[in-house]
Amino acid sequence: MSEVYATRRSRVRERCQASGSATALISRPANVRYLAGAAPQGAVLLLGKTEDLLVRTGPPDDRPTDGRPDEALRIHTLPGAGGDAAVAAADLSAAQGGECLAVEEHHLTVARHRAIRSVVPRLRLADLGSAVEQLRVVKDEEEISCLRIGAEIADQALGELLESILVGRTERHLALELERRLVDHGADGPAFPTAVATGPNAGRRAHRPTDRRVEEGDFLSVCLGATYRGYRCEIGRTFVIGTSPADWQIELYDLVFAAQRAGRESLAPGAAYRDVDRAARQVLDSAGHTEGLPSLMGHGVGLEIDEDPQLAPAAMGKLDACVPVTVEPGVHLPGRGGVRIDDTLVVRPEADGGPELLTITTKELLAL
Amino acid sequence: MSEVYATRRSRVRERCQASGSATALISRPANVRYLAGAAPQGAVLLLGKTEDLLVRTGPPDDRPTDGRPDEALRIHTLPGAGGDAAVAAADLSAAQGGECLAVEEHHLTVARHRAIRSVVPRLRLADLGSAVEQLRVVKDEEEISCLRIGAEIADQALGELLESILVGRTERHLALELERRLVDHGADGPAFPTAVATGPNAGRRAHRPTDRRVEEGDFLSVCLGATYRGYRCEIGRTFVIGTSPADWQIELYDLVFAAQRAGRESLAPGAAYRDVDRAARQVLDSAGHTEGLPSLMGHGVGLEIDEDPQLAPAAMGKLDACVPVTVEPGVHLPGRGGVRIDDTLVVRPEADGGPELLTITTKELLAL
Repeated sequence: MSEVYATRRSRVRERCQASGSATALISRPANVRYLAGAAPQGAVLLLGKTEDLLVRTGPPDDRPTDGRPDEALRIHTLPGAGGDAAVAAADLSAAQGGECLAVEEHHLTVARHRAIRSVVPRLRLADLGSAVEQLRVVKDEEEISCLRIGAEIADQALGELLESILVGRTERHLALELERRLVDHGADGPAFPTAVATGPNAGRRAHRPTDRRVEEGDFLSVCLGATYRGYRCEIGRTFVIGTSPADWQIELYDLVFAAQRAGRESLAPGAAYRDVDRAARQVLDSAGHTEGLPSLMGHGVGLEIDEDPQLAPAAMGKLDACVPVTVEPGVHLPGRGGVRIDDTLVVRPEADGGPELLTITTKELLAL
Repeated sequence: MSEVYATRRSRVRERCQASGSATALISRPANVRYLAGAAPQGAVLLLGKTEDLLVRTGPPDDRPTDGRPDEALRIHTLPGAGGDAAVAAADLSAAQGGECLAVEEHHLTVARHRAIRSVVPRLRLADLGSAVEQLRVVKDEEEISCLRIGAEIADQALGELLESILVGRTERHLALELERRLVDHGADGPAFPTAVATGPNAGRRAHRPTDRRVEEGDFLSVCLGATYRGYRCEIGRTFVIGTSPADWQIELYDLVFAAQRAGRESLAPGAAYRDVDRAARQVLDSAGHTEGLPSLMGHGVGLEIDEDPQLAPAAMGKLDACVPVTVEPGVHLPGRGGVRIDDTLVVRPEADGGPELLTITTKELLAL
């Protein structure tokens, strides 16, 4: 694994050098983890002139750590807990003879930026921008394999829930049970707060589970995901409670299903992000659902649950192969409920069979 | 409740005016919630020249919200999802005739700060510093009551766990069960990731539960907390598994207990933060445990689990009445395990009975 991290770091360094900085300070936790194998709380990564350093504060016992740091990387631990790892790393950069340090201005606070300038005034600060986020968009097969395992775990947890009795149980209990099952099946934890939405809540994006109980005739929409070795996937399904769905439920379900399929089918290397959004969105639009649609129809996933690219109307850019994304259209009718269908897929060329579906739970309308 | 928020906002405004800014932009989520009643994801609060505004992005359905926004506060929703609420709020501030805007430089990123300067160049930006965090240190009785209920919930969850069979179960399972019980008893959720540590892991601060199973003879240390209406408390206890603790276990437990009691007994209005730390620390020090001690012996709690004050060797400042803090010394012996004892208490004057203990689970060494 160590080589993988070293290669990633040298790619960031190339980008830095191209824009005039020989060194870089990585502070965004997911970026630190991507380049160093682990991101202890409060730690930063210095891509230095003579050496790369993972700079962390306080005794190791005080700070929980995800993942294992790349063994080839030297770890510099600050004495005490009060220090700022970013300031210390900038100081170490100058000590190595660094002259210009690129920082993540979209993550670093104004106060830390100011502290660096005051402690190491001779260091020129530049902006690294989202160079690391951009590198993270296309995944290698090792990363995709973590997502695939995470998706299997989420499928299992969801499948087991569907076999149990649902009527009378609260949204909060169902969400907790799903999260327990995720961990039972080997997840590090849930990838994001599990959303279980019943009746009038069903179909709402990122719904926070309430004490409402599942009732006969309800729509039940569930959105969950597993984190596996740091990688986060997402699956969303909608079901009907009871033996026979109402006509409006079948109609709405079929519509969202058609939108989601259109989105999935538009995934291909070279497809514009906005075209994937439009493929799904126009199915909902043309049925008259223009109000209250989600602001995007999908997004990248990886070390964070909401990564680039954004599959949204104003997004710029095109998909590459090996980019994992969600496709997740939904419609919510205020007071009545709604439908969301959400998959995680990996963009693949047609020669390799087209988009690879990671979340394989059926998308038939199940009546439970 | 609306009056409470209005009063808090006018106190922040007074601080601003004292330092030359008539208006302020609050971006740190816990600060937004403190002043506005709720902090929708990505939302900011503008304390404007003519009106206060909660500025949020995207359709409400897209963004989960904790708490309920103060009804007296106007909500400004940005169209679409791409906008930056901080930039929009700065623009609205200028439209109200604001000239100088104080921002939270310790939270705002360099990139957002730059975007504000570029979109609203005529607005002078100042630093609000941690004015809101400082206001948050002393709690009102409503806030303390939320912490008290949270502590009761945590006590209940822990008490139920102790009645179950523990040997053979993994740290991860025990942690999940505790979190489920927290929610069962009415918590919004866990206040932080529950730490369950067995055998050689016991006594480590912020230990991430593993698949290690509880064994006879183990120390078992547990640290958990409930969030109730946004307020987060903390309790930590250490137990022995089996009928008769070993001599070294009793000795270590008694030592940490004595340190924790010394810390608790030093809590009083006017006590220096560092003196509380020293009271607990010197008990451990004088027994020869100088290595690997926690970097602090306690900290404030409230809308965040780790707030001011820090009860640490270099901390400056003195306790006030109605400040809730943890007292949480611990010793971890590498390879053998250790002990942590952690309570949440509210500082009260002696005339009111001294420090109020919120987490009342026994601190006797239980053999389970």
